[in-house]
Amino acid sequence: MSGSAHPMDGEGELSAADMSSPRQTNTPFVHKVEVPPKQSLFNEFMYTFKETFFHDDPLRHFKDQSLSKKLMLGLQSVFPVSEWGLKYNLKMFRGDFIAGLTIASLCIPQDIGYSKLAGLNPKYGLYSSFVPPLVYAFMGSSRDIAIGPVAVVSLLLGTLLRAEIDPTTSPNEYLRLAFTATFFAGVTQVTLGFFRLGFLIDFLSHAAVVGFMGGAAITIALQQLKGFLGIKKFTKKTSIVAVFQSVFSSAPHGWNWQTILISISFLIFLLVCKFIGKKSKKLFWIPAVAPLLSVIISTFFVYITRADRKGVKIVNHLDKGINPSSLRLIYFSGDYLAKGIRIGVVSGMVALTEAVAIGRSFAAKKDYQIDGNKEMVALGAMNVIGSMTSCYVATGSFSRSAVNFVAGCQTAVSNIIMSMVVLLTLLFLTPLFKYTPNAILAAIIINAVIPLIDVHAAVLIFKIDKLDFVACMGAFLGVIFASVEIGLLISVGISFAKILLQVTRPRTAILGKIPRTSVYRNIHQYPEATMVPGVMIIRVDSAIYFSNSNYVRERIQRWLIDEEEKVKAVSLPNIQFLIIEMSPVTDIDTSGIHALEDLYKSLQKRDIQLVLANPGPLVIDKLHVSNFADMLGYDKIFLTVAEAVNSCCPKQSDEV
Amino acid sequence: MSGSAHPMDGEGELSAADMSSPRQTNTPFVHKVEVPPKQSLFNEFMYTFKETFFHDDPLRHFKDQSLSKKLMLGLQSVFPVSEWGLKYNLKMFRGDFIAGLTIASLCIPQDIGYSKLAGLNPKYGLYSSFVPPLVYAFMGSSRDIAIGPVAVVSLLLGTLLRAEIDPTTSPNEYLRLAFTATFFAGVTQVTLGFFRLGFLIDFLSHAAVVGFMGGAAITIALQQLKGFLGIKKFTKKTSIVAVFQSVFSSAPHGWNWQTILISISFLIFLLVCKFIGKKSKKLFWIPAVAPLLSVIISTFFVYITRADRKGVKIVNHLDKGINPSSLRLIYFSGDYLAKGIRIGVVSGMVALTEAVAIGRSFAAKKDYQIDGNKEMVALGAMNVIGSMTSCYVATGSFSRSAVNFVAGCQTAVSNIIMSMVVLLTLLFLTPLFKYTPNAILAAIIINAVIPLIDVHAAVLIFKIDKLDFVACMGAFLGVIFASVEIGLLISVGISFAKILLQVTRPRTAILGKIPRTSVYRNIHQYPEATMVPGVMIIRVDSAIYFSNSNYVRERIQRWLIDEEEKVKAVSLPNIQFLIIEMSPVTDIDTSGIHALEDLYKSLQKRDIQLVLANPGPLVIDKLHVSNFADMLGYDKIFLTVAEAVNSCCPKQSDEV
Repeated sequence: MSGSAHPMDGEGELSAADMSSPRQTNTPFVHKVEVPPKQSLFNEFMYTFKETFFHDDPLRHFKDQSLSKKLMLGLQSVFPVSEWGLKYNLKMFRGDFIAGLTIASLCIPQDIGYSKLAGLNPKYGLYSSFVPPLVYAFMGSSRDIAIGPVAVVSLLLGTLLRAEIDPTTSPNEYLRLAFTATFFAGVTQVTLGFFRLGFLIDFLSHAAVVGFMGGAAITIALQQLKGFLGIKKFTKKTSIVAVFQSVFSSAPHGWNWQTILISISFLIFLLVCKFIGKKSKKLFWIPAVAPLLSVIISTFFVYITRADRKGVKIVNHLDKGINPSSLRLIYFSGDYLAKGIRIGVVSGMVALTEAVAIGRSFAAKKDYQIDGNKEMVALGAMNVIGSMTSCYVATGSFSRSAVNFVAGCQTAVSNIIMSMVVLLTLLFLTPLFKYTPNAILAAIIINAVIPLIDVHAAVLIFKIDKLDFVACMGAFLGVIFASVEIGLLISVGISFAKILLQVTRPRTAILGKIPRTSVYRNIHQYPEATMVPGVMIIRVDSAIYFSNSNYVRERIQRWLIDEEEKVKAVSLPNIQFLIIEMSPVTDIDTSGIHALEDLYKSLQKRDIQLVLANPGPLVIDKLHVSNFADMLGYDKIFLTVAEAVNSCCPKQSDEV
Repeated sequence: MSGSAHPMDGEGELSAADMSSPRQTNTPFVHKVEVPPKQSLFNEFMYTFKETFFHDDPLRHFKDQSLSKKLMLGLQSVFPVSEWGLKYNLKMFRGDFIAGLTIASLCIPQDIGYSKLAGLNPKYGLYSSFVPPLVYAFMGSSRDIAIGPVAVVSLLLGTLLRAEIDPTTSPNEYLRLAFTATFFAGVTQVTLGFFRLGFLIDFLSHAAVVGFMGGAAITIALQQLKGFLGIKKFTKKTSIVAVFQSVFSSAPHGWNWQTILISISFLIFLLVCKFIGKKSKKLFWIPAVAPLLSVIISTFFVYITRADRKGVKIVNHLDKGINPSSLRLIYFSGDYLAKGIRIGVVSGMVALTEAVAIGRSFAAKKDYQIDGNKEMVALGAMNVIGSMTSCYVATGSFSRSAVNFVAGCQTAVSNIIMSMVVLLTLLFLTPLFKYTPNAILAAIIINAVIPLIDVHAAVLIFKIDKLDFVACMGAFLGVIFASVEIGLLISVGISFAKILLQVTRPRTAILGKIPRTSVYRNIHQYPEATMVPGVMIIRVDSAIYFSNSNYVRERIQRWLIDEEEKVKAVSLPNIQFLIIEMSPVTDIDTSGIHALEDLYKSLQKRDIQLVLANPGPLVIDKLHVSNFADMLGYDKIFLTVAEAVNSCCPKQSDEV
């Protein structure tokens, strides 16, 4: 049964011979650990390159196709619309039309509100819901995402821009810097996607994103208190302490009761509509049109009562007309170029994180695949073109995409419909917003960002992984108490620290034998596991690279020293063998080999024999090539721990 | 025999029941995968904290000791000399004395030469071999390291300083910046050591260090061509192209034949002495005193022949006297402060890398332990005090430590002896160096740096790990063709890229059954392994964290799609089960759990059942807490792959 036994592969299963009853283990079958066939250098490199950058095999459709077909496939790759556009039918259009109208009604008030977050005139928000969705519809692959300005990115952009230029004193430079940042955000996104570096986005851990989004949502809600309460003098800072200071120092005479009346009543209205929409699937359109309805009603109300003369702040004049060209406004030289690049890179990457998360989540729901890197190219192109047409950074919006999905969108045409509605608004309807009170925009934004505070996810993170939860809280508190950039920095920092920890401090475990079996388990986890006298068995739970080789070596030596002390104290036989169980060690590099060599020599001096059990194919290959296997002796490398123990202490395995 | 079988621990060994002959496998024993006992949050955190920062348990001696003993141990910890000083005897002194004299004879010409690399007056090199070794002897733990200025750090410092200030036009500012950088190098080193962040040094992979050192050595040798050939006009750049341009454009009339005569003859002399020293262990002192001997002979020769009047450049006047205080020269404010900090941090960390490598290597040879973090504190203190006493960045020197070792040093007292000799030189002997030709210093430096080019290590790296070799070559070529900083940046960059790769692109493997066994192996490695019809078995070779969870999920799905296509083409039964072998998956976080959930839902839609085999204790715990185990069903989690396959297709295991 074990006649054709083969080199292990990290699994460590024994043949029958070892597992027979004790009376039959006279000659335990020892598997020879063979060196696997060598792969050519080119193949090895191509495999690693392919797995890193092209793991989803985007070019698989191109195989075995004629040249013209390849060209067509190439075109479809860059402009997916040419693929799904051919299959478009009236039924799909119906779904997209309804969805498009629905998200348009949602987006118009949000655009006006979010532009203020970004410190820009409201018309730029509308511009950014016109051009970018059109570009995306031609180049993007997600069927459910809804494009436009979003709360968090608007806040981030506004914060970063205000740190450089004051929008009240130098509005022209501010605007130009905003377009410059948008341009370079787009360039960053295209570059990441084109060079298939999309996996870098994965480095912001889910927990950190949950914390960051929650903190950003609260910060945005706090910023709305200015419009909500009608306060004139308000802090420029975003931290919770500064905001509360502004709010309470201006109370109560700095608060405008008419404004508060409007904001509170409509906020209640919006929350009630949201509740209705959750209760009944059919009434999904109610929370979707509620914001626009509130805007219409409140505008009418202010117009009738001329409440703006009584201290209610209004949007005021909104320019008519579509996006003017802004190509000449972008800074391509000078001081502001470097600032624009920096702000662009940061906001571009945060925007990508949102869009990719949305795209993946809906693709999983509807069970289709999207190519993350291709999406990034589409999003980047959208922002580059947007920056030349007076738009600022747009990306996928959580709230709008959710509504899009529920409203029955079929393809990205819903974005085109929304874009057309925005066009109509820009051409004809902007004067209607003259009397729209800022209070209603504040209420709409507060209502929109509440879902970003994902308490459920935070609780789950707490239950699963405490370190993850620390990351989450760190990002959350950083955004609220310091600033958005600090919160972002903390998120990224903690994510990297987690990777560092994983990489530099792998787990190791001392193994003991479970009585009456040949099974070896972690003695801390399973108290019934007993250590074999004279033998120390340590398992290393990670590949041994330069980042952890010294730690692994020192840890093993320390455990050995501790054990030797214990053994001396109770007069047990000295340790004579150190078996390293290597099945989790998937790979080893030169530093790792050196660490093993140092360990081997150090053990030789103490008359302890080093034995390796269960090295994987990569590892045994490198041990062979580095001549460490020669130095150690091939007879000291075993397939399993049980075989290693058998060879060290032949009597042990028989004893119960 | 398997009555008391226990939850697996990532090892996956079966009980006897599964391994019996086919006729007996009527009711295969299925091990229940138990959830291990829960550790309290505090214990878990303390364990991680301890392993990260205190893995070598530096405070273990402090346990169960009286207060006075603890104080004494604390003192010994900061000043190890108080521990080994008490055991010092005459025999040890004899070894240290000989070693000290030997390294002193080596260090004096090197100090003069290395100061020029750093762009400083030669006396500062001598100062840096006086104070720092003294401080180290009191605070350091390595018995073999020899302290003083070193070639690579001097080059690095010189390059970084020259980029800010020109030493010929503003020598005072240059000197002050050098002391500032030295101060902050020391501060960096103390900080890293005190906060036990020493593992950060491990992030420069061995391969990158080999390449960087080799490149730096060649760059230093090239720089010596100025003194070697007696060229007056020489490039300030360090790249090989610039140097060759200077060398060949000034040939042949720019070369001074008298200088070349001196340099070549003494270089040959030094190489011959080195060869003799390698051949015979007893004659170790010959290559050690050869440099000083060359200096004496050549100085005498130049004095007699007044060769300095014929174009041979000499050291000229060297100030007498010991180190003056330089505390007031350090920049603690102003522009140069930031520059000093930056240069200090970089050179401090490179200096640490050398010293820690030397310390570890000799500790391994002589089989004692050194605490890396404590060493860093000692090295940092040495540089901080040095910066206040006119020294520049000193660290452990490869060449001097090797000589120290071979000459029979016993403790750090050899450094004290060397320091005393340098003191004598500073007080009385500096006038003797007036007629020392630069040519001899150039020859000595070239001879000293040749061993830094470790071709043997590079060949070994090439054989073991091709990616490591790319890192090595990248650093090497970066230093030679661009600059030391670029080479360093490439080293660090490639080291990080390697960690990134390890973390984001773990290996996965499809497993197949080895005929006539219950052993499952990678089908690419073992062609005889056959896949089980209707069942896909994939092994994931890493913990599943946010950094790779999306990749793992997408990779598994892609393999499934490829397999489904193959299976359709040859009319085999469709895949109905996907078994994930999880023994190498040592841990999983929230992103990993989400990836598993998405995978599960996606498979449900295709009528494929997800099955998990062999999850480790951490993983099963998190699966339980996140309710994924509930969602999947506890009956779909098995101890081994064989058991999982048995439950999916009970007939398969019986068939041969």
